Amino acid sequence: MDDCDLETMMRFAERLADAARAETLPRWRTGCAAADKNEGGAWDPVTEADREAERAMRRLIEAEFPDHGIQGEEFPEKKGKGRWSWSLDPVDGTRAFVCGLPSWTTLIALLDEGQPVLGVIDAAPLDERYVGPGGDRKTSGCTTLAEARLSTTDPYLFSAAETQAWDRVRQRVRTTRYGLDAYGYARVAAGSLDLVIEAGLKPHDYNALIPVVCAAGGAIGNWEGGEDFSGGRVIAAATPGLYRAALEAMRS
Amino acid sequence: MDDCDLETMMRFAERLADAARAETLPRWRTGCAAADKNEGGAWDPVTEADREAERAMRRLIEAEFPDHGIQGEEFPEKKGKGRWSWSLDPVDGTRAFVCGLPSWTTLIALLDEGQPVLGVIDAAPLDERYVGPGGDRKTSGCTTLAEARLSTTDPYLFSAAETQAWDRVRQRVRTTRYGLDAYGYARVAAGSLDLVIEAGLKPHDYNALIPVVCAAGGAIGNWEGGEDFSGGRVIAAATPGLYRAALEAMRS
Repeated sequence: MDDCDLETMMRFAERLADAARAETLPRWRTGCAAADKNEGGAWDPVTEADREAERAMRRLIEAEFPDHGIQGEEFPEKKGKGRWSWSLDPVDGTRAFVCGLPSWTTLIALLDEGQPVLGVIDAAPLDERYVGPGGDRKTSGCTTLAEARLSTTDPYLFSAAETQAWDRVRQRVRTTRYGLDAYGYARVAAGSLDLVIEAGLKPHDYNALIPVVCAAGGAIGNWEGGEDFSGGRVIAAATPGLYRAALEAMRS
Repeated sequence: MDDCDLETMMRFAERLADAARAETLPRWRTGCAAADKNEGGAWDPVTEADREAERAMRRLIEAEFPDHGIQGEEFPEKKGKGRWSWSLDPVDGTRAFVCGLPSWTTLIALLDEGQPVLGVIDAAPLDERYVGPGGDRKTSGCTTLAEARLSTTDPYLFSAAETQAWDRVRQRVRTTRYGLDAYGYARVAAGSLDLVIEAGLKPHDYNALIPVVCAAGGAIGNWEGGEDFSGGRVIAAATPGLYRAALEAMRS
């Protein structure tokens, strides 16, 4: 595949999402008192779901596209032989998973020379799937902070300076919600949230979000107004105007 | 009904929950850019869902138990002629509802001389129902802060003194989640969260939670170790031991 047939690749990405669901869903809400990653020995359904879902997706990619690179959360990077690679986060929102909450997702992105050109946010427990390009999602069209529904996963993850910027936006919006991980970006694409502001994201956290938000007409960029996400600071907005309004509020 | 046949009353409470669902679910995720309560004129699906669901539940109660009192969120209190009254919150988590998030619930409690003896937390968008007494939910049995999965709806709702107490617990637990309203208490009853700490709750927010958490073997009390919830400060825990551990941490 030198020319990217994105429709074919989207069908394949959805097969990856299906394969991940088969590994994650049966392990969710089992062993509710199970241990987290940092405790040795105990049975750990989230780590098992993470690893087995990533393994299942890697197997499919290696069988179908052996030259493609793979960057996953759980295993070492596989270097590819061309421009294409996959970014995989089998369980985004492991804390939600561990807490029996239905907001965790599986994130899949296809990268062309490192740039995400296709994304899937698969909200398996809710049986909702968000894709880009394509799909029929549309953002709310919201352009002002006063009307915006804002979200971040955990306000305690911000540094002191980031907290100041965050607070300047939070104090001007209509309402704020927490705890959503990538599902917040999915709901921006679906038009029921308007703005997500986060820091500390890794490539497997943000790669899939970009095509999904863009396909729905939203804007996604970093905290400086650019498109380099390697600093992990991401803003997704229903419109470019709302993105600019958030940037301005954060600076002032 | 002078002697309380709680099984009969639970069947009736579930009919109330069904009636509420018929009003809330069709209005959820419609008009995603819709206005909130404070904006005049515009179509407002959450207020409409709130009002119509409470109307539907009131109609059923008035037809079946005309002597029962009714305290709802949306309409004036109806004084009853005996010991029994109902506490109704048609949409708990209106901000989640407005943001298209599936964590809002309908709360129903039957009170005996003001004390909740029966509760339903109906998570309509997730098709999950949590009841007490009865049901087959069980808390996790967690007894230590170090293993506890903690939740609060919005950390910015705490006063300065409350924030200090909250932080002392938050810094000692395994993980913390946000944004769940009454659904957090439901997941304590279901064993996937262990501890919820909140302030500022109204009677229609907390009445239904008490029988649900107790039926699952959990503990629920106020921030001083007592059972008077009128101050709006509520702690729900998987076990009495975890409740005491939280109280101690908050004081020290």
